[in-house]
Amino acid sequence: MNEKKTIGYLGPIGTYTGIAVNYFFPETNAYELREFPNIQACLLAANERKTNYTVVPIENSIGGSVNMTLDWLVHEISVPILGEVRLPIHHELLAHPDRQQNKRADVIYGHPQAIKQCEKFLMKHYAHCDIRPMDSSAEAAKKVAMNPDKPWLAIANSMAKEIYHLTTVRSRIEDNEANRTRFILLGDEPLPLGGTKVKSSLTVSFPENDLLVLHEVLDVFKRRDIKPTKIASAPMKTELGEYMFFIDVETTNRSEQYDRACEDIRNKNCTLRHLGTYPTFDIVETVNS
Amino acid sequence: MNEKKTIGYLGPIGTYTGIAVNYFFPETNAYELREFPNIQACLLAANERKTNYTVVPIENSIGGSVNMTLDWLVHEISVPILGEVRLPIHHELLAHPDRQQNKRADVIYGHPQAIKQCEKFLMKHYAHCDIRPMDSSAEAAKKVAMNPDKPWLAIANSMAKEIYHLTTVRSRIEDNEANRTRFILLGDEPLPLGGTKVKSSLTVSFPENDLLVLHEVLDVFKRRDIKPTKIASAPMKTELGEYMFFIDVETTNRSEQYDRACEDIRNKNCTLRHLGTYPTFDIVETVNS
Repeated sequence: MNEKKTIGYLGPIGTYTGIAVNYFFPETNAYELREFPNIQACLLAANERKTNYTVVPIENSIGGSVNMTLDWLVHEISVPILGEVRLPIHHELLAHPDRQQNKRADVIYGHPQAIKQCEKFLMKHYAHCDIRPMDSSAEAAKKVAMNPDKPWLAIANSMAKEIYHLTTVRSRIEDNEANRTRFILLGDEPLPLGGTKVKSSLTVSFPENDLLVLHEVLDVFKRRDIKPTKIASAPMKTELGEYMFFIDVETTNRSEQYDRACEDIRNKNCTLRHLGTYPTFDIVETVNS
Repeated sequence: MNEKKTIGYLGPIGTYTGIAVNYFFPETNAYELREFPNIQACLLAANERKTNYTVVPIENSIGGSVNMTLDWLVHEISVPILGEVRLPIHHELLAHPDRQQNKRADVIYGHPQAIKQCEKFLMKHYAHCDIRPMDSSAEAAKKVAMNPDKPWLAIANSMAKEIYHLTTVRSRIEDNEANRTRFILLGDEPLPLGGTKVKSSLTVSFPENDLLVLHEVLDVFKRRDIKPTKIASAPMKTELGEYMFFIDVETTNRSEQYDRACEDIRNKNCTLRHLGTYPTFDIVETVNS
């Protein structure tokens, strides 16, 4: 018997993470998809090896890092990063088709990141509404779909719109047209993803938590001609003001230099954890937008 | 007529921010207190000069930066930082006193930061509960106070417990005993706060968004013997992967060196915005905990 490998992702069906899954796995039929209600549950299952692969959002161009993902990568889990995809994100304001005056609303449901990405639009047009956070955009769409009699709207993507049979009140409500989200693929077994651009991710903490050591760490990368593409601080969770850093660097054709840089940094008494070296993809426009 | 100066803060009465207000303004009677339902509303009023002073949380030892505050300081508002206080934070799990078996619960209300700070406790003892985010801890307490018939609990502080007449199911439910939060005071008119330790805050973005320039910025501080106490990245909100940095440095007796460092950094074609030089206070234990 040949059991299918499992892919865990932030569900239900119709989330942006689901779209990212389709990019990593063009033939999803060959896998068993497992939906999780929130990012923690996804990452917990990944760490306990209850899924073979896991796809979660890690950063948005407006909202910044997805704190929960970064926090778990830094503190809770040890599953290698195998790939990254960057998708354009468009949000739609959706209503139940039974409602005639669908522009009137008391409550708008959406994922906190989506709400943040549409903050100016919402303040301008729906300042009187109660904006309520949901675990995912698809959950928001589902809530509206199941309550045709309520004056409720959802912020979600066009895939969720189709799945839950909603109508568009307004499309592309994101405040910034360049709105994009990065998703990462986690797992123990590398996939033949192809791609020409390669990145590496690591976390580093400093002796005596001296933040100036970050200067020395960046110096090492500079001397090895390795360019950081993200430098984010994460609390150590011990004392206020104690941080560690999550760093992404471009390592296309520089894997040997990267290995040496890691060695140099460890020699400075820093604690370095390598999270993965993986291909990265930039998708210009999604099919569903 | 001598109108009272106004202090805006994250209300309702009984929030941790309210406790921080008491530290900055021991004689609150001399001021008019204005409660705001969320951090955005606080900071919007501050920026429009509808309040003279504003107190908001900026960072917790477990949850990290309060994204909303950092985001608005970086992108939206231009009100100087006048002071900082660090308070120990203790959370209590509260129930309505009318409920006999108050340990049983379906729903637990709390501020997202408070929920995060008690995550392990909640997963261990209340995994079956629906954990619902509220705009503040005091709102969570109020919700439980107004619904004596519902099996609901709230995560809040002991001040909120007194104000809303609730009973303690369990105290000090935070996962980490060293749990502390930093609050900042914003305003145009400095207050005679005293204190011996001084900090400065700034934001900096780099030419062509080259993250390695952070190396040069840290180099400037190092040469001027100025120690960074926080380095946090914030998205530029333009393209994915474009960041600016929010930096705190210790400037006790180093104000002249700090001014020169800012000049040096600007000479490297960086865009630097000085957010304030202010006294900082560390409170060992609050009266209410």
